[in-house]
Amino acid sequence: MADTNTSLSTRSIFSDIAPIKFEGPDTENQLAYRYYNKDQIVLGKRMEDHLRMAVCYWHSFCWDGFDIFGAGTFDRPWHGGANDRAAADLKMAAAFDFFSKLGLPYYCFHDVDVTEASDTPDALSNNFKRSSDNLAAYQEETGTKLLWGTANLFSHPRYAAGGLTNPDPEVAACAIRQIRDCLEATHRLGGSNYVLWGGREGYDTLLNTDLNRELENFGRFLSMVVEHKHKIGFTGKILIEPKPHEPMYHQYDFDTATIYGFLSRFDLLGEVHVNIEPNHATLSGHSFAHEVATAVSLGMMGSIDINSGNYQNGWDTDQFNLDSRDITLALLELLPSGGLDTGGFNFDAKVRRQSSEPVDLFYGHIGGADALARALLAAADLVERGQISEMKQKRYAGWDGPLGQNMTSDQASLASIADQAATAGLNGTHSSGHQEYLENLVARSLK
Amino acid sequence: MADTNTSLSTRSIFSDIAPIKFEGPDTENQLAYRYYNKDQIVLGKRMEDHLRMAVCYWHSFCWDGFDIFGAGTFDRPWHGGANDRAAADLKMAAAFDFFSKLGLPYYCFHDVDVTEASDTPDALSNNFKRSSDNLAAYQEETGTKLLWGTANLFSHPRYAAGGLTNPDPEVAACAIRQIRDCLEATHRLGGSNYVLWGGREGYDTLLNTDLNRELENFGRFLSMVVEHKHKIGFTGKILIEPKPHEPMYHQYDFDTATIYGFLSRFDLLGEVHVNIEPNHATLSGHSFAHEVATAVSLGMMGSIDINSGNYQNGWDTDQFNLDSRDITLALLELLPSGGLDTGGFNFDAKVRRQSSEPVDLFYGHIGGADALARALLAAADLVERGQISEMKQKRYAGWDGPLGQNMTSDQASLASIADQAATAGLNGTHSSGHQEYLENLVARSLK
Amino acid sequence: MADTNTSLSTRSIFSDIAPIKFEGPDTENQLAYRYYNKDQIVLGKRMEDHLRMAVCYWHSFCWDGFDIFGAGTFDRPWHGGANDRAAADLKMAAAFDFFSKLGLPYYCFHDVDVTEASDTPDALSNNFKRSSDNLAAYQEETGTKLLWGTANLFSHPRYAAGGLTNPDPEVAACAIRQIRDCLEATHRLGGSNYVLWGGREGYDTLLNTDLNRELENFGRFLSMVVEHKHKIGFTGKILIEPKPHEPMYHQYDFDTATIYGFLSRFDLLGEVHVNIEPNHATLSGHSFAHEVATAVSLGMMGSIDINSGNYQNGWDTDQFNLDSRDITLALLELLPSGGLDTGGFNFDAKVRRQSSEPVDLFYGHIGGADALARALLAAADLVERGQISEMKQKRYAGWDGPLGQNMTSDQASLASIADQAATAGLNGTHSSGHQEYLENLVARSLK
Amino acid sequence: MADTNTSLSTRSIFSDIAPIKFEGPDTENQLAYRYYNKDQIVLGKRMEDHLRMAVCYWHSFCWDGFDIFGAGTFDRPWHGGANDRAAADLKMAAAFDFFSKLGLPYYCFHDVDVTEASDTPDALSNNFKRSSDNLAAYQEETGTKLLWGTANLFSHPRYAAGGLTNPDPEVAACAIRQIRDCLEATHRLGGSNYVLWGGREGYDTLLNTDLNRELENFGRFLSMVVEHKHKIGFTGKILIEPKPHEPMYHQYDFDTATIYGFLSRFDLLGEVHVNIEPNHATLSGHSFAHEVATAVSLGMMGSIDINSGNYQNGWDTDQFNLDSRDITLALLELLPSGGLDTGGFNFDAKVRRQSSEPVDLFYGHIGGADALARALLAAADLVERGQISEMKQKRYAGWDGPLGQNMTSDQASLASIADQAATAGLNGTHSSGHQEYLENLVARSLK
Ligand SMILES: [Co+2]
Ligand SMILES: [Co+2]
Ligand SMILES: [Co+2]
Ligand SMILES: [Co+2]
Ligand SMILES: [Co+2]
Ligand SMILES: [Co+2]
Ligand SMILES: [Co+2]
Ligand SMILES: [Co+2]
Repeated sequence: MADTNTSLSTRSIFSDIAPIKFEGPDTENQLAYRYYNKDQIVLGKRMEDHLRMAVCYWHSFCWDGFDIFGAGTFDRPWHGGANDRAAADLKMAAAFDFFSKLGLPYYCFHDVDVTEASDTPDALSNNFKRSSDNLAAYQEETGTKLLWGTANLFSHPRYAAGGLTNPDPEVAACAIRQIRDCLEATHRLGGSNYVLWGGREGYDTLLNTDLNRELENFGRFLSMVVEHKHKIGFTGKILIEPKPHEPMYHQYDFDTATIYGFLSRFDLLGEVHVNIEPNHATLSGHSFAHEVATAVSLGMMGSIDINSGNYQNGWDTDQFNLDSRDITLALLELLPSGGLDTGGFNFDAKVRRQSSEPVDLFYGHIGGADALARALLAAADLVERGQISEMKQKRYAGWDGPLGQNMTSDQASLASIADQAATAGLNGTHSSGHQEYLENLVARSLK
Repeated sequence: MADTNTSLSTRSIFSDIAPIKFEGPDTENQLAYRYYNKDQIVLGKRMEDHLRMAVCYWHSFCWDGFDIFGAGTFDRPWHGGANDRAAADLKMAAAFDFFSKLGLPYYCFHDVDVTEASDTPDALSNNFKRSSDNLAAYQEETGTKLLWGTANLFSHPRYAAGGLTNPDPEVAACAIRQIRDCLEATHRLGGSNYVLWGGREGYDTLLNTDLNRELENFGRFLSMVVEHKHKIGFTGKILIEPKPHEPMYHQYDFDTATIYGFLSRFDLLGEVHVNIEPNHATLSGHSFAHEVATAVSLGMMGSIDINSGNYQNGWDTDQFNLDSRDITLALLELLPSGGLDTGGFNFDAKVRRQSSEPVDLFYGHIGGADALARALLAAADLVERGQISEMKQKRYAGWDGPLGQNMTSDQASLASIADQAATAGLNGTHSSGHQEYLENLVARSLK
Repeated sequence: MADTNTSLSTRSIFSDIAPIKFEGPDTENQLAYRYYNKDQIVLGKRMEDHLRMAVCYWHSFCWDGFDIFGAGTFDRPWHGGANDRAAADLKMAAAFDFFSKLGLPYYCFHDVDVTEASDTPDALSNNFKRSSDNLAAYQEETGTKLLWGTANLFSHPRYAAGGLTNPDPEVAACAIRQIRDCLEATHRLGGSNYVLWGGREGYDTLLNTDLNRELENFGRFLSMVVEHKHKIGFTGKILIEPKPHEPMYHQYDFDTATIYGFLSRFDLLGEVHVNIEPNHATLSGHSFAHEVATAVSLGMMGSIDINSGNYQNGWDTDQFNLDSRDITLALLELLPSGGLDTGGFNFDAKVRRQSSEPVDLFYGHIGGADALARALLAAADLVERGQISEMKQKRYAGWDGPLGQNMTSDQASLASIADQAATAGLNGTHSSGHQEYLENLVARSLK
Repeated sequence: MADTNTSLSTRSIFSDIAPIKFEGPDTENQLAYRYYNKDQIVLGKRMEDHLRMAVCYWHSFCWDGFDIFGAGTFDRPWHGGANDRAAADLKMAAAFDFFSKLGLPYYCFHDVDVTEASDTPDALSNNFKRSSDNLAAYQEETGTKLLWGTANLFSHPRYAAGGLTNPDPEVAACAIRQIRDCLEATHRLGGSNYVLWGGREGYDTLLNTDLNRELENFGRFLSMVVEHKHKIGFTGKILIEPKPHEPMYHQYDFDTATIYGFLSRFDLLGEVHVNIEPNHATLSGHSFAHEVATAVSLGMMGSIDINSGNYQNGWDTDQFNLDSRDITLALLELLPSGGLDTGGFNFDAKVRRQSSEPVDLFYGHIGGADALARALLAAADLVERGQISEMKQKRYAGWDGPLGQNMTSDQASLASIADQAATAGLNGTHSSGHQEYLENLVARSLK
């Protein structure tokens, strides 16, 4: 069980904040949900079960507000001097108090988020064992569940040239050890998924990179992760998180389509899914909805790290996503496929560096949860009305007619279709796609 | 045989320009090659055979300088009133005179580039048949060869929503007829490859798009193209040209990695390769070298549409590429794999809209050819010196040692490696990647 | 008066569409306004008077759906063969019928939008005189007013290297003649403003550009425009429209801040204001709100070309802007300054090339008008609640206290402040900016 | 004088590296200059005097290789435990040893770069006084001169919301104290310029920002800096460094044109110049050459922070710039104006995080210096040949003819020019801008 004194001292941090409740759109209370009403039934399912929201450990409990141009700015009572065991324990108590106050069902972590600083792989392994036991205790105490765990293979200097794709096998072996430990802990903690974000799996320059060898190692070791998952009986999904750039000049897991090709190459389709992040989507030149639609279409949908960038800054700003319209478009791709299975919406989002008070963490998460809930209501309304899907069906109806059936039959060939086109004097014309009409429907459902 | 009168009348257009010759770096003649010396042996092969340069028909002979904000600006004696048969013939004569004057071995075309405007698919089919016979005559007369042909499935209004991925099977059937005709003509003309650039294969909004159905049709019909190629005995490569955006909001053939996944999904790996374009590479968030390295690594390398964008404008500017350093980095990925096979360097580049005289076409191509030649010399020098490949080999040497061999053996598992890491107390460290040293080597070889 | 037959024949085009009315958020009618209720009072003013919406002539009535990769796709009964006088008249009848059906108070035009194709400057001058008389008649007949006029100095080939900044004075003289004619016509038509969008005022390469001379000519001729405006008694605003790129590699009127410097250099501050376009804002690396805030802060606010780009395509897509949240942020900068004076919200937006039916023009404008109205309601709510402005005031309160007053007094110097800081041992600390709290307030008001 | 023991201990760090000498393009020595031959006369001036290269203190001696995703990776013998006085002294000894070994004439620093970590403004002031005395001693000992100094107003948490533009006057007062101290030290050290990079002068959200007040404070305090400069007799230039984004969402000093408007608004033209950085240029949507041309044209040219980004990553990567072609284009704008006056080329560039050995610092700077030298040789060749300037002159010749003179005379008005155009029936036409020809000239001169 978690250390009681620690829990108590931390509870005092948020003690002036009451648990966050749903109070409806018109409340004047900024510490209440306006749209996220967890028990409300939407498309036959509770909102909470649709969205499966999670708080992430790193941005809210580990980051002190530093950036590349300056030191930490945050008032975080659980930060102090060194990142030692006492500090790690205090942080954990604070984290679970926060999870509980927010009333969201899940959380996510990296191994190093929950431990003190560790000098060696051995120390990390031991510290993580101890910390994950504490996580188990807190989960039991608070009812907060684990959406996913992951190993941090990018912060330690040894990972400067990658983890699983490092030019040095000794580094890759350290990475594998961390993954093994973290996957097993995730299993023990009842995690719903296990994530691999390829922090530094990529390259800074091709001049010193053996692209092929790195990708082959990546594929080989990922297969071992899958094999190990089965061996230990972990039934959650293994997820890869696409990101095109940053911290490396190029990241191998560029986007969902790239990952599909990679999984296909190493025969891992069906075994590995994606953890999509809107900010990563836009950095790769795609909309959030595109990445979701691609994943759904390819059977790769896993989970979502919900956040957003802004469109002026070309790096991963990981902001809370208040763009309900954009989220609605993504949900329109997701809901018809049955929605999230083991996945959830993890707030991989951080308050701005200037938002330095602990209460800002609440504002960030509440706003993010409400934006999601609002988007869910809009998307569900669109699904229920059925106008969009109906128009889509009509648009492609020709493929169900005689010509379309002919062209897609097993007997068809380039020559047979070309000959048919010539004989029939086919002279196809364009029909309006009515994009603005459809966009107006979305606007209408977004209240 | 091509119409003699037409030929003559056109020859007078470029009659004041002598064939372009190699005169060395110090010539004052702006209508001479400074670096492109076709018979010079580089890495055991003639420069011409390394680079296999081609002139494209569309930018230089069809485009009149119009853009979305204004009308054509070019002085093109072969343009006049309507795009009728006489105009098409005059254009062809001008084109082959230009190819000959430049002394580059190849050219490329779309079906509609070489014909008059055609009211119906039937008319186009007939006109194209006639025009391709003229092409054959000109090829024979001038010795210019066909690098590749392609069907234009994007300019006619019927293709507003795509060709092979159109929601209407009638449109797709028209597209297939054009492909059949053009593939067969390419075969008759001895073309080295056949290209599919997915002009409007993509979407403007997901709201009216059945992503999965469109991609399935795309895969199906591409398989038919491959099947037909084999049926008619065409031995050139079938190529897809990646482009991430434009004209559609999203193009399905986003980049090389995306195409790999697509080909894998439809079991077309090995049958279809890529035609890489630097301007498309940068629009997709990749360097030119990255796209080449990816294609080489995945066995997909086909041909190159050599050009460049500038880094300030976010659309496809298709400029002549004078950035020899950037081309050198791409050639460094290409040369060790054996270079281009059936592919070549096609100048899919256009003079700026303000460069309105016919002679500007010469300046553009000469500059482009010299930049390529210079890059070839630099890349060959780097390959011959061997320093870069040697440093790369050393960097990954651990994978050939006992630990690396162990980790990549069939017996290895996540657990066995993690256990070995723990038992041996592995504590991998980072070694310098010496990026600046390597970049200086490139600068040094670029003369 | 406009030709009655023409009017009649055109009215039949839209005859199946009833005038667009406000029916409230819950209407099932897609040809009705859901939020734009012109007589509704918001912050003490009618919605219509706040927004002063205009339809543009060019995108909806001149453009046939062509793009750089393909021919026109639109079903436009008023387009036909050549752009001759009859076609121009038919187009005008269609346009005013559309303006009336929409019930928006304003429209905007370029000189060449409203005339037939003209072979020479003389012909254009004459044709435009005739057409502007027709505009006057239609304005009187329909009650639609002119928000602004402008001369097209970019479509004719002579303007390839710019209008007022052309290297050739003969071209600049033609540009000036067009401006004179169009400014005077705008005056006659009771236009509220006159706009200069620097279509090709910029450069493609510095290698052939005398930057300084071009900008000096630009400044000189702009001064003449201002002088002429006063001479003829035009009391509307002269507006420059910022755009960073496209069609030129670089456009001189890059953004609002650049234009401020330019006006300052040529002593035109106060005489010339800006016409801000969201899509141009984002292409220049700014948010829409930033451009509005900058213009307001510098006293340069003129009018708005309301539209949006998408964040994946790097060119000017000019889409209808349905992002009410983004518009709300801009209105929050605009409303406290008193809102638009002579300016308005001009829909410089076009339906997508696939939206090929005439009715799509209605969907586009209705959606755009509703998005604006919705943003106005949200911004007004935020202004009335006053929470944001109150927090802002508190944040800067120190500048009204003794230290702030001291530092900003006339007696203060670098040394006096530095000495005061040293003597008092000042050790300033950071206070939270509460960004997420503020963003949640915006979300709350956006219904 | 600097502590001898420290010097000695540090000298041992680089003791295995001989002073870097010019050895010509064909040397095999990677620790030699291939193009930078400081005494070579180019356009009548020594190379060293043209380029006035400087090493920056921060990237090479303060940064340990950390980034936002991970801890420091660098082997820096002068880094150790805490950033205390001994460490600061050791770092300074290492820095000057490096400057001397490279043989470049200048260096640059921030106040906090050269001191130990300081708890309070008082401590910083005292520590900086002591450190600047040490700098003076090292300058004397080594002959290295100070190109510019600057105060770091962005790393301390108090500056999270800006320095001179902070909402809290207490923070601004601290900033002013640092500037006063650093400007005076720069003066004592014989610095050629004093730089203000607006690290956090900008905003993260407009919702909490009083744009106008912040800019007014910025203008007011900048005026005080200028006044103080004159008071103390500092004859160097005051420079502002443009940057569009990062670390703030928006930086006020967006680009050169924005700064021109700002200086004009606060009557500081002629008193303040710009410090241009290529990576900041490209982040703002401009080429490096554009920013230089703009500064030259507006009389604002100050100095250059030479580096480059790459075009795939949307943040400030500050790489060594090996793109000699791009630098040549910038020098072509700079040289005809007389080149740099008090400014220089400061390597505001850092080796990549994976380049972890001390020797990598040499490779980075040597490559950067050679790229600059090579560009200088090319640009000088182009200036001497005169072809580009001649073509430019011809292109604008009409403005020196009767029509041009008429149009630009004091008597000209919009009406008089329009009337002249009408009377004379002017019908201007386009002439080729020959962009490709000009680009080929540049390629030719770049050897
Ligand atoms: Co994430
Ligand atoms: Co992220
Ligand atoms: Co191409
Ligand atoms: Co292209
Ligand atoms: Co506009
Ligand atoms: Co626009
Ligand atoms: Co800098
Ligand atoms: Co920088």
